[in-house]
Amino acid sequence: MVLLSGGLDSATVLAMARAQGFAAHALSFRYGQRHATELAAAAEVARALGAVRHAVAEIDLRFVGGSALTSDLAVPKGRSLEAMTAEIPVTYVPARNTIFLSYALAWAESLGAADIFLGVNALDYSGYPDCRPEYIAAFEAMANLATKAGVTGQARFRIHTPLIHLTKAEIITAGRALGVDYGLTRSCYDPAPDGAACGTCDSCLLRQKGFRELGLTDPAPYQPGARGQ
Amino acid sequence: MVLLSGGLDSATVLAMARAQGFAAHALSFRYGQRHATELAAAAEVARALGAVRHAVAEIDLRFVGGSALTSDLAVPKGRSLEAMTAEIPVTYVPARNTIFLSYALAWAESLGAADIFLGVNALDYSGYPDCRPEYIAAFEAMANLATKAGVTGQARFRIHTPLIHLTKAEIITAGRALGVDYGLTRSCYDPAPDGAACGTCDSCLLRQKGFRELGLTDPAPYQPGARGQ
Repeated sequence: MVLLSGGLDSATVLAMARAQGFAAHALSFRYGQRHATELAAAAEVARALGAVRHAVAEIDLRFVGGSALTSDLAVPKGRSLEAMTAEIPVTYVPARNTIFLSYALAWAESLGAADIFLGVNALDYSGYPDCRPEYIAAFEAMANLATKAGVTGQARFRIHTPLIHLTKAEIITAGRALGVDYGLTRSCYDPAPDGAACGTCDSCLLRQKGFRELGLTDPAPYQPGARGQ
Repeated sequence: MVLLSGGLDSATVLAMARAQGFAAHALSFRYGQRHATELAAAAEVARALGAVRHAVAEIDLRFVGGSALTSDLAVPKGRSLEAMTAEIPVTYVPARNTIFLSYALAWAESLGAADIFLGVNALDYSGYPDCRPEYIAAFEAMANLATKAGVTGQARFRIHTPLIHLTKAEIITAGRALGVDYGLTRSCYDPAPDGAACGTCDSCLLRQKGFRELGLTDPAPYQPGARGQ
């Protein structure tokens, strides 16, 4: 089970799971104002990296509100790395990774699978509490008490987070070595209608920094004049 | 935040939360083959017990499969209590309470609420792993690491399970003392199209046993000849 957003991190994780010999089932979510661009990217990435199946679960977070990713709050632009990590940003969606991992757990158990891969990152991350190792460990402990497979000993669920201690540049290096085409991936929180990235949201800035540190140009499409701001 | 299925247990929990002085937000789910009867019952119960709001989240578990409640597997009928508790039944839905609690956590955090009520029961229960106290404790620990409110100390999330050590008869006694109209509630796993209960699934049998022990008749509608089997 690989949680696949269509972004750079989860594409790399899918490639890593495949390289470890796993038959990968990829799971994406459609929720609130999530952009179709990302889901189309996820489908292309799943195909390119040889996932057995790519499922999209419809989830209804609109009644939750309170985040720039699911409501009309403005996505912050042009922030420094210091500002990004100083506090939890408005792009935080309450309990998002918990909801995503819960669906992955349900699917994993129904498939007889025990390994769930998630592309969280505690280093170059944007300050989300549900990207930290202590959260992941707590979810894993809970998962093994929550399920028939966990309780009966049929499976020992494991949440794999192979990127958690890597920088964005290290993630890109690892993915390139495994043949990931980052031109297929999309990370922008606020893309244009044609899917082109804004270049200035936290996610674009972190991504561009990674490519820049490696002396590379991000192959994903950006809006005119947006690249490298 | 009260998770409200429209059944006997969650209606009692809503009454208990209200009696403790909480302004209650009730949350129900529409998923797979879940019956419209239950959601209509949940709406009536929420209104009768003075919930501030009743939200229904659409969740998509069909890709998960593997349970009699979301697929075409037959619901077991006429089983003894021993048979019900000897193993985890086919009505088990992988990670269901984990998904439900994750949504409740998201909504609670967005409302600035910290108290989540769930009507699980470890005594007269049907052998589900996600109805046990150790699971609830693990979810609560995870929730406080998963969220902005938990991590910043704005809230200490608590999963309240006031029924966990009660028998069905004790639950009914408590609910009647708080004015719950059990005629509005629906528990059957396999109701007729008009919502009438089958009287023979695990859920009907446990419910009827509770009323019988109190010398009461279950006021919910049953299919002709089904009551008291």
